[in-house]
Amino acid sequence: MEIQKLEFLKHLLRCKRHVYLDHNATTSVSGQVRRQMNHVLKYCYGNPSSLYGIARKSAEIMEEARRHVADAIHAEPAEIHFTGCATESNNAVLKSVSNYFYPKKKKIISTPIEHPSVMNTLEFLKKQGIVVEYCPVDRQGRVLPAELEKMIDAETFLVCCMLANNEIGTIQDIPAIAKIARQHGVLVLADCVQALGKIPIDVHGWGVDYASFSAHKLYGPKGVGALYVKQGSPFAPFMHGGHQESGMRAGTESLHNIAGFGAACQDVDKLLAHTEQIRVLKRQLIRGLKEIRPDCLIHSPEADCLPNTLSVAFPHVEQAELLAMLDHHGIAVSAGSACSAQEDKPSRTLKAIGLSDQAAQETIRVSLGCGTSARDIRYALKVFRDHFAGRTRFVNMITPAQLDETILFDEQVYILDVRPHSLRGKYKGLPNAHEASFVALEKYLPQLPQDKHILVACQGGGLSYIAAYYLKSKGFGRVSNLRGGLAGWKERRPDLYQKYAGQNVTILKPAR
Amino acid sequence: MEIQKLEFLKHLLRCKRHVYLDHNATTSVSGQVRRQMNHVLKYCYGNPSSLYGIARKSAEIMEEARRHVADAIHAEPAEIHFTGCATESNNAVLKSVSNYFYPKKKKIISTPIEHPSVMNTLEFLKKQGIVVEYCPVDRQGRVLPAELEKMIDAETFLVCCMLANNEIGTIQDIPAIAKIARQHGVLVLADCVQALGKIPIDVHGWGVDYASFSAHKLYGPKGVGALYVKQGSPFAPFMHGGHQESGMRAGTESLHNIAGFGAACQDVDKLLAHTEQIRVLKRQLIRGLKEIRPDCLIHSPEADCLPNTLSVAFPHVEQAELLAMLDHHGIAVSAGSACSAQEDKPSRTLKAIGLSDQAAQETIRVSLGCGTSARDIRYALKVFRDHFAGRTRFVNMITPAQLDETILFDEQVYILDVRPHSLRGKYKGLPNAHEASFVALEKYLPQLPQDKHILVACQGGGLSYIAAYYLKSKGFGRVSNLRGGLAGWKERRPDLYQKYAGQNVTILKPAR
Repeated sequence: MEIQKLEFLKHLLRCKRHVYLDHNATTSVSGQVRRQMNHVLKYCYGNPSSLYGIARKSAEIMEEARRHVADAIHAEPAEIHFTGCATESNNAVLKSVSNYFYPKKKKIISTPIEHPSVMNTLEFLKKQGIVVEYCPVDRQGRVLPAELEKMIDAETFLVCCMLANNEIGTIQDIPAIAKIARQHGVLVLADCVQALGKIPIDVHGWGVDYASFSAHKLYGPKGVGALYVKQGSPFAPFMHGGHQESGMRAGTESLHNIAGFGAACQDVDKLLAHTEQIRVLKRQLIRGLKEIRPDCLIHSPEADCLPNTLSVAFPHVEQAELLAMLDHHGIAVSAGSACSAQEDKPSRTLKAIGLSDQAAQETIRVSLGCGTSARDIRYALKVFRDHFAGRTRFVNMITPAQLDETILFDEQVYILDVRPHSLRGKYKGLPNAHEASFVALEKYLPQLPQDKHILVACQGGGLSYIAAYYLKSKGFGRVSNLRGGLAGWKERRPDLYQKYAGQNVTILKPAR
Repeated sequence: MEIQKLEFLKHLLRCKRHVYLDHNATTSVSGQVRRQMNHVLKYCYGNPSSLYGIARKSAEIMEEARRHVADAIHAEPAEIHFTGCATESNNAVLKSVSNYFYPKKKKIISTPIEHPSVMNTLEFLKKQGIVVEYCPVDRQGRVLPAELEKMIDAETFLVCCMLANNEIGTIQDIPAIAKIARQHGVLVLADCVQALGKIPIDVHGWGVDYASFSAHKLYGPKGVGALYVKQGSPFAPFMHGGHQESGMRAGTESLHNIAGFGAACQDVDKLLAHTEQIRVLKRQLIRGLKEIRPDCLIHSPEADCLPNTLSVAFPHVEQAELLAMLDHHGIAVSAGSACSAQEDKPSRTLKAIGLSDQAAQETIRVSLGCGTSARDIRYALKVFRDHFAGRTRFVNMITPAQLDETILFDEQVYILDVRPHSLRGKYKGLPNAHEASFVALEKYLPQLPQDKHILVACQGGGLSYIAAYYLKSKGFGRVSNLRGGLAGWKERRPDLYQKYAGQNVTILKPAR
């Protein structure tokens, strides 16, 4: 009896535990940043472009923040433009510089492991006539500068390479790449978003022409980026309008966000000092995981890697299952970039370092942060151990092959479709499905039947896994997940898809 | 003696008084908005794109804000995309829709009184091959829908017209314009930035295709805009990258800003209810100004005008002088759009309604807000009265014609150049000038000489006026302003400019 009580208490404690291990997706704002932002929101409302007293105060706050950002990356304040996010910074450089050289020069060299804000902008530019070539990376995600050099020709005007990869953590030799580019008269954009606060940055020393940064990766606010443009390097505004940012970026400045960015940058030295501790915790995590699953594969390189980032695959374990199980235990990790989290596709980065589709879909990314403790790592390892020992609660699984008329039209089965709105056009839904919003699932709970078997489906089987776990935790007794999602079902059962998909679909209304 | 004391106390009180009458430039965030933002900053750090619990909470907050914005403008939540600012919204629509139609259709019709974010984007598009025609406005800034209809031809794909003008307050008949456009199969973008919270908005009822909004004009945060895209109207992302905003706007969302925008929109009905009170105050202000200066000219129309906006000119009184004098007395008003405040050029809007350069440069904009009180208006009127009666402290004035070698090379004259960094390339500085940053003037005070005559200059004579007043208030005894600035001097004394400009210029370093 006593032991039972103890177990119950332990269970309660475990349920309440939250361990955030996705710092590469975003970080929480530090207390200092939040206080600075709150102060600006409360007292400094003048438009920094206006001329009267309160507006001049705003302009001054902005210039101070600019100095802090410049100091953190070893640049001059006049070389820093504030933007709405790093995605904007990358778009601005790639489009502005292409516009400057095209059609005289046409080629950009990049890598296959860049962030979506670079990759998708490059794909857009290809349609406008820009030639984009990707320099292959080795199995650890490294660009070989000598390989890159071979690709540079008279048509090339820009090399675009991230400093540190967001998924596997590989750090590129930007000084060497910049040196080669300079020798050939080619400009360099370094996406430094994932690196700031984790490794030292010296844009002047390295000689890059452009570099992009984001506050929310280093305990600053979401919604503010910075763009470094070396004095003299060609640049024209991407957003047209007012004369803000010396005429280089129109739009009223997000003063409190900029102030928050400045405050976050003041802490960069402290963050860098803390990385050794993070490195130790990451080593503990790796050691523990290897004990639990000796067959696990570490994709992150041992040397030249972000101290906090671990990309790891567990053979024959779907990432969707792991993410859902970990989420259920309060542990936040991710499959890869948050910017492509809802796509349910294997990561381009992981494919580029030579992983198969399957291996890519067995990979998760764990990224530690300043607040991560040894206790967090122990807890995470315990959950992994329990899971691989079969001690965690599983949801049922239905494979695409199993899903036929007997299940689809069983009155005891309630089909719940949790695809995001934007993906619903891609495939028709399962017959008799009930469509609900994944992100607001809580608001649909009262109308879901307790007495039926709930079959959760999504596009690729990932979101639905998390949703199924969630429903289990909310007391729904029988919950199954459609493995591989609608995509898998359509592929495996094209006959049934043809015959039934999209029939009798109900859109549920969330409780307000 | 008693009376002297009383006067002194009065003087102290007056010095401390701050009256903000530039709500069209920006507003302060309301307490409710700030608290909501602070809550999100403190507790909701999950990336809305991620899948685990804390991220789903973030996504939910975003969807709730989206609903509040949609409700405020009578749209569906799925039609709202959040952006970094309204400038981005306008850029996105104009460039995306042009890209969609060009080269099949080539023409955009707009008006000559649009915001810089529209005007400058249209100028950029013209270089890409888009034909832009401006439908003239009458003397009150009104577009005549019948005139606009005549301009529509088979080449036209878009009409772009602001709902309410930011400088003079004119409200356009958007429903009529949208109806005409629809009849001709042409799309409509309505820039509603200045209107939300001041007049009712019904994008569905009016049938516009696109509409742009900004939080910071209605007591929400700076750095977040919204873009309404009618279901089915063509649109493609302007920023490429992640799949955020249903794939329509890449970049990690500024969650706290979006939550703040939502909170601000919840107050729209309250704001609209308050407009009658603001209208009464504006009438009092107009009455008072007409008593003080019966020759003043009101540009804002009596009917179909924003309730809070007053554009008014005082013949033979430079706006720069008025702005500086009012700023000195704690009153914040502006010359026009904050987005072109530092340009020192006559407003395009005022020129479009038929004013001469001179009349445009004698015009100021007063825009009232929720917090404006009858006492604020009485105080402002008192300052105007004192000024026009010659009772306020003036700074000396030096005309371009007067500025010759005897002043330029007088050892007792200290020349201070306060042009913003971005404008310094345009004209060479005065010989022996000391360059300082206008916005951080405070930090240069210790190194300015108390015993010399300080001559302040800028590009057009506006910033320097404010700077001169500021120096006066800081105890500098002899301060003069160069009327018309460097532009005026170069025009009036090309011989001297040729001979001396740029010689012996010192760049001052601010105290940190």
